[in-house]
Amino acid sequence: MALPLLDQIRQRHAGICLYGFAPPKRTSSADQLASIAAQQVERIGALDIDGVIIYDIQDEAQRTPEPRPFPFLPTVAPDEYANVHLAALNLPKVVYRSVAGDSRESFVEWLATANAARAIHVLVGAPSRNASTGLGLREAYGLVQAHAPGLELGGIAIAERHERGLDEHERMLSKTEAGCRFFVTQAVYDVTSTLSLLSDYSLALGARGEPPQPVVLTFSPCGSEKTLSFMKWLGIRFPRWLENELRFAADPLEKSLALCERIFLEVWEYAREKGIPLGVNVESVSIRKAEIEASVQLIQTLRGHMRRSLG
Amino acid sequence: MALPLLDQIRQRHAGICLYGFAPPKRTSSADQLASIAAQQVERIGALDIDGVIIYDIQDEAQRTPEPRPFPFLPTVAPDEYANVHLAALNLPKVVYRSVAGDSRESFVEWLATANAARAIHVLVGAPSRNASTGLGLREAYGLVQAHAPGLELGGIAIAERHERGLDEHERMLSKTEAGCRFFVTQAVYDVTSTLSLLSDYSLALGARGEPPQPVVLTFSPCGSEKTLSFMKWLGIRFPRWLENELRFAADPLEKSLALCERIFLEVWEYAREKGIPLGVNVESVSIRKAEIEASVQLIQTLRGHMRRSLG
Repeated sequence: MALPLLDQIRQRHAGICLYGFAPPKRTSSADQLASIAAQQVERIGALDIDGVIIYDIQDEAQRTPEPRPFPFLPTVAPDEYANVHLAALNLPKVVYRSVAGDSRESFVEWLATANAARAIHVLVGAPSRNASTGLGLREAYGLVQAHAPGLELGGIAIAERHERGLDEHERMLSKTEAGCRFFVTQAVYDVTSTLSLLSDYSLALGARGEPPQPVVLTFSPCGSEKTLSFMKWLGIRFPRWLENELRFAADPLEKSLALCERIFLEVWEYAREKGIPLGVNVESVSIRKAEIEASVQLIQTLRGHMRRSLG
Repeated sequence: MALPLLDQIRQRHAGICLYGFAPPKRTSSADQLASIAAQQVERIGALDIDGVIIYDIQDEAQRTPEPRPFPFLPTVAPDEYANVHLAALNLPKVVYRSVAGDSRESFVEWLATANAARAIHVLVGAPSRNASTGLGLREAYGLVQAHAPGLELGGIAIAERHERGLDEHERMLSKTEAGCRFFVTQAVYDVTSTLSLLSDYSLALGARGEPPQPVVLTFSPCGSEKTLSFMKWLGIRFPRWLENELRFAADPLEKSLALCERIFLEVWEYAREKGIPLGVNVESVSIRKAEIEASVQLIQTLRGHMRRSLG
C-alpha cells in the first residue's frame, strides 16, 4: 500500500503516480457539469494512482504568433471543480492556479479559500514575459509565505526552457526556497533536454548539500497530426526523428505509447543513478476517446515499471 | 572472413569498421616520419578492421571566432602519407582530400595521381562558406566525373548541420548522385541529431525508391577537459547532460567509452529498424597515449557488437 501523496512528497519518494486533466469548459450547463464530473469520479476513481492534477488552462496566445490548433475555451475554475464538483473523488488533488490574471488583493483572497481546502497547489506564472500584466510568480510566492505559509506547494519545471537558457535548475532551486516540495514537467518527448535539466539540478544540489525534491514527469499520448501540432504549439519539443516516427506510423497512438515508455525508462534509469526521486503524471491533451483510453493504458504501464524498479 | 572494404561498400553492407587518424605534422624529419609510420603499420596492422581513414586536417579557424584549443600544425599530405609512408600497411585506405585549397588545375592534376593510387577518397569542402576561396565541393565532384569517373568516393555527413537546417539528408542525396558510395560522420556524441538525420535520410530514400548507402559513424574517446573543448571547437555537439557526465566523472576516459558504446547501440538499433547499413570509424583527436589506447579498445567493443548483431 502506497503512502498518501502528501507523505510521499514530504518524504521525497520516487514513484508518485498522478493523472492530469483540465476542468470542463465554463459554458457547460449544470447538468453537463454534473454528468462529466460523475463520469470522471467513476473512471479516475478506479485508477490505481496517488492523486490527480487539475490544470488551469490559459490561452497562451501571447507566447507564440502561431495560430492555436484547438480553440481556447475558458474552463470552470480548477479549485472550484476540484473541491465542489469532484468532491466525491476520493483522491488527493493537485490544483493548478494561474496567477497572471490575479491582483495582489484577488490572490490574497484566493489564498484564504485555498488554505481551507485540503488540496496541494501549483502556482503557474504568465505563459510569457510579455504576457504578464497581473501578479508575477515571485510576488505570488511572497504572498503565500506572508498569508498562507502552511499551503502545500509544487512547482512547474520546463526542460525545454533549460535547453535554451541552461537556468531552469536555478528556477527549481528558487521555487524550492519559496516552498515548492515537488515539481511537475510539461509533456516529455525530448529525452535530452530532460536529462540535461536533471543533470544540472543534481549537480547544483550536490554543491549545496541539499536533497532533490520529487520530479513528476508528464507524459501525454499523441495520436494524430492535430494533437502533435497542438502539443508543439504548447511549447513541447519533439526531436525531428521522433516527430517523423509519429507522423509516418501506421498507428500513431500505439507508436506514441511505445515512445513515451522508452523515454520514461531512459529518464527513470538516469534519475535512479543520480538519486532524484522521479514520478509520473499522465494526461491527455485531447478529448478524443482513443487518446484518453491510451492515457489510462500508459499510466498503468508506467506505474508497473516504477513498482518493479522500486521493489 | 569479412569482404574487402570496397565490396562491403558496393554491396551496401552494415558493419564496416575503420580506424581514423591524421598524418604526422609536416615539420617531421624523414627519420621521425619513418619511425611514426613504422609504429602505425605495426599497431594499426594488428587491428581487426576493414580499413583506415587518413584525414586531411584543416585549420578551420574561419569556422568559429573561438581560439583553437590545440595549435594547428600542417601535416604531410594525406595521400602521400597513405601511399608512400604507409605503403607497408596492408589495409584498404580511405584518404580525405580538402578541395578548398585547390584551383581547378591543381585538382585535375591531383585527380590523375588519385586515380592511379588504389585508395578510396573522401572530398572535403571548405570548413565554412565564408572560408571558401578555392574550389567548391560541387565543382570538385563535377571535375571527378569529367576526369576520373572511376574514382571511388565517399562523402561527409554532419548530423549537427542537420539539426540546424534539416537539409543534411538532401546533401547526402546530392553527394550520392555525384558518385559517393558511403558516408562518414564526424564524432557522434549527440544521439538525437544523428537519429534525426538517419530518419530524414530514410524517409527521402523511401520516397525515391532508392537504397541507403552505408553510413559510417565516427566515435572518438574524450578523456580530458581539453579534448572536450577541442571537440566542441571542431563543431561536435555534446548534449549538456553528457558534457556534465564527462566533466564530473572520476575517470572521464572510461566514462566516454561507456557513453560512446551506449550511443552506438541506440543508433545501431534504430538504423537496423530503418534498414540503413551502419558502420563505425574510431579515431583519437588527441595524441595522448591513454586516448589512443582507449580508441583501440573502443573499436574492438563496437566491432564485437556489430558482429554479434549481424550473426
